[in-house]
Amino acid sequence: MNKEDFIIKAFLNKKNGDDGAIIDDWCFSKDLFFENVHFKREWFSLEQIATKAMLVNISDAISMNAVPKYALLGLALPKNLSENEIKALQKGFLKTARKFNIKIIGGDTISNDKIDISLTIISKINDKAVFRKGLKKGHLLAYTGKLGRSLKGLEILQNGGTLKPNHVFIKPKLRASFFYEIAPLISCAMDISDGLSKDLSRLLALNKCGISWFKKLDDYALYSGEEYEILFAFDEKERQNIEIIAKKHGVKLNIFGKAVKGKYEFRGREHHF
Amino acid sequence: MNKEDFIIKAFLNKKNGDDGAIIDDWCFSKDLFFENVHFKREWFSLEQIATKAMLVNISDAISMNAVPKYALLGLALPKNLSENEIKALQKGFLKTARKFNIKIIGGDTISNDKIDISLTIISKINDKAVFRKGLKKGHLLAYTGKLGRSLKGLEILQNGGTLKPNHVFIKPKLRASFFYEIAPLISCAMDISDGLSKDLSRLLALNKCGISWFKKLDDYALYSGEEYEILFAFDEKERQNIEIIAKKHGVKLNIFGKAVKGKYEFRGREHHF
Repeated sequence: MNKEDFIIKAFLNKKNGDDGAIIDDWCFSKDLFFENVHFKREWFSLEQIATKAMLVNISDAISMNAVPKYALLGLALPKNLSENEIKALQKGFLKTARKFNIKIIGGDTISNDKIDISLTIISKINDKAVFRKGLKKGHLLAYTGKLGRSLKGLEILQNGGTLKPNHVFIKPKLRASFFYEIAPLISCAMDISDGLSKDLSRLLALNKCGISWFKKLDDYALYSGEEYEILFAFDEKERQNIEIIAKKHGVKLNIFGKAVKGKYEFRGREHHF
Repeated sequence: MNKEDFIIKAFLNKKNGDDGAIIDDWCFSKDLFFENVHFKREWFSLEQIATKAMLVNISDAISMNAVPKYALLGLALPKNLSENEIKALQKGFLKTARKFNIKIIGGDTISNDKIDISLTIISKINDKAVFRKGLKKGHLLAYTGKLGRSLKGLEILQNGGTLKPNHVFIKPKLRASFFYEIAPLISCAMDISDGLSKDLSRLLALNKCGISWFKKLDDYALYSGEEYEILFAFDEKERQNIEIIAKKHGVKLNIFGKAVKGKYEFRGREHHF
């Protein structure tokens, strides 16, 4: 067992293991966005750092079928940040909050050796939450968008290149309106934060299923993390409805396999530990 | 303006500025507990680190008159922590959670160069929340316990000494049952995390009051941070009731001043930036 799984298991109970935790009709999600772990200062402007920190957290809420309402902001910042730099960070948080109609209601600020952000998003469930659990044998497995670009972007940055401000690695594209509309039709979902292969292995293990692939995906599609596209599954009878909704929202729909009896094992490199 | 106040001001709205934020009858509080900012590894065992991280967050909830129910746990941990070390951390989180009847419902785990903990506590308000705002001229100002020991403990550690496991710097003593009982009788409260002088300056500025001192407090009492005793105020007519409740719970009550017209300015060293 890798250490992240060991830690998750140490704290596991019925309420966790999903992108968010549900209490009454609220969903709570928390993600860390740390310098030199998730980003390097030379890759992102300060506004982009704050924006991505918000988006990766909002992504968790969306993939539970919840609408983000409030945020708590934990900011660990170097003492030598100027007021203009703090304002640039603030702009990223506030613009994204405004765009998603989120109120920042509190948090904590400390000085630190680097920029480490911790966000908690409090969201209201739309009708019914969507969980990772719920997959049945025979369900079709799908993901949104085009996978691989995040890893390619990371490689460009690691080789000293630069990315455009709207590149998915800088600014993930979320699928809120599409996902809220398909949510009643699907059996399970999660966002793709650690790569399709890793996240799929979690989804399948949790639901005690294997996969029958419809097509061979390349390594970029399988191992690209921080995509924030959505992995989900549904009964074949919902296929046409979901295709119509995807078309309506201009979302590329990739139906790549079917849940079957068996097991699927992740074989790539672990991201975290 | 110091940078922490600058940042807080940048994000301020009606919902923040208190130890916790209130939504319906829930209270949300979030505190960071970072290595080399709040603790050094040589000062604390791993279990003590996790325990203090929990307690300083629970303190926020208590001082809002809220009962902690759920926690979200953000853990940034060095890759070289052993499974036994992770278990020791886990023990601190779980024992404290059990003691306060808190469920850990989710969070995030990443690898990092040091142990940085971010906790969000979700609490249920007892009847009515207590805020920092509410102080009126003439109200008596009080704090619980004996202030100064946290700073003295820190100085001992900084000089290479050691502290007993129940020292307030290692394991803050919270005043839940006392505070819940006086909550209906008081006008405002906050926990003392940055030192009485600093926290008092915030409370008085927010309520546009000054202070008439009943006694001179020494520098240890004024400038000792991370005490997690409670600073609060009440109308003189509640004095006897509050004294009776303090006696019942074995809590030392220090009525040290009265809110008056004027201003009080903090003159000590800023802790954070």
